[in-house]
Amino acid sequence: MTYQKKEINTIKRGAKRASYDKELIHGILDAANLCFVSFLFEGKAFVQPISYGRKDETLYMHGSLQNRMTTAILEADEVCINVTLLDGMILTRSAFHHSVNYRSVVIFGKAHELKTNEEKLIGLETIINHFVPERWNHCRKPNDNELKATRVIAIDITTASAKIKHTPPGDNVEDLDLDFWAGTFPIKTICEMPFADEKINASTPIPEHVLNYYKKYKNGF
Amino acid sequence: MTYQKKEINTIKRGAKRASYDKELIHGILDAANLCFVSFLFEGKAFVQPISYGRKDETLYMHGSLQNRMTTAILEADEVCINVTLLDGMILTRSAFHHSVNYRSVVIFGKAHELKTNEEKLIGLETIINHFVPERWNHCRKPNDNELKATRVIAIDITTASAKIKHTPPGDNVEDLDLDFWAGTFPIKTICEMPFADEKINASTPIPEHVLNYYKKYKNGF
Repeated sequence: MTYQKKEINTIKRGAKRASYDKELIHGILDAANLCFVSFLFEGKAFVQPISYGRKDETLYMHGSLQNRMTTAILEADEVCINVTLLDGMILTRSAFHHSVNYRSVVIFGKAHELKTNEEKLIGLETIINHFVPERWNHCRKPNDNELKATRVIAIDITTASAKIKHTPPGDNVEDLDLDFWAGTFPIKTICEMPFADEKINASTPIPEHVLNYYKKYKNGF
Repeated sequence: MTYQKKEINTIKRGAKRASYDKELIHGILDAANLCFVSFLFEGKAFVQPISYGRKDETLYMHGSLQNRMTTAILEADEVCINVTLLDGMILTRSAFHHSVNYRSVVIFGKAHELKTNEEKLIGLETIINHFVPERWNHCRKPNDNELKATRVIAIDITTASAKIKHTPPGDNVEDLDLDFWAGTFPIKTICEMPFADEKINASTPIPEHVLNYYKKYKNGF
């Protein structure tokens, strides 16, 4: 299954690195922790990072009731969101060909606000279980006051694209014999061994869902 | 020295985590590899990641001549850029207080294009030396054709703000005795030991400026 190639999401530069594959795009969205949301405010473009969760073709986010960013994207016809994982830095013999390796996704979608507690809880469960799988069943659920103070929004993905680059140094042939070093720095974002809140008894074991997250991502998201 | 607090960059929510200190903001900009640039295209807000370099109060970026993003930000009165380093994930007893630890900077600036080769070279040197310090002196400089094919832009910072959160789990007092685990996942973005391009003789030592970068960031940017 692929996302539809429209004018807005068709990658022109570096098209051979582009993908519209849903599974691949969902995989990048599910591995990352933060997305970068662009929005209009008083006629100018702004960008802000935020946590999120994905379920099927919907991204969920939450914020306070007065949050400027969620207000702006609820008003927009279409919202544009980027998620990028940096995987490497490529040093080439020429300054010109230095580059990065990455997995990057752009999402276009339409936002709406979840109004009932039932809807909000589905959104928040998705966000918390994106944060750490199974976490929702291992924490206290939001109460009525917390739900009232939280705006939860859903962004239905209308279309999307990914751009992935995992290549070695790409110098011109005539530069290969220059006396400059070329190579790759692998870059990883990792989670380290979690540690308990100081108010938790030190002998309490770290729960399995937390350890599973550590094992899954200790070598990189 | 601090950035001026204007309406546009004053942080209202979480103001105690806000900073306008130039040294702190420059430090975050210098540690990160990618920034997220928002721009207007056909009346909509978009966001895109890009490499950059900082020198004093200017960010430099480069792209192809037809690049949509640089074209848009050159036309904008003001451009908004975010740089975020994720430092931790905070698991609390309540779903409501889950959060992340981070260092995040928002820059507002005015972009202009560098036209002469001399200006472009200053911009590109800044970008390459941001990528890996001293790299510019250890690679082939751009030739006239490469300079002609590259658009280099400078964004003079007009104002900026940082938001930094490095806090332990912050549950409500009445939740502390709940039988749910709470704790912190440290998150780090690291660079691993670099490896040479396959066309480089395996006995060639990795140059010092590359090893210095590895030593500086192997435990996190």
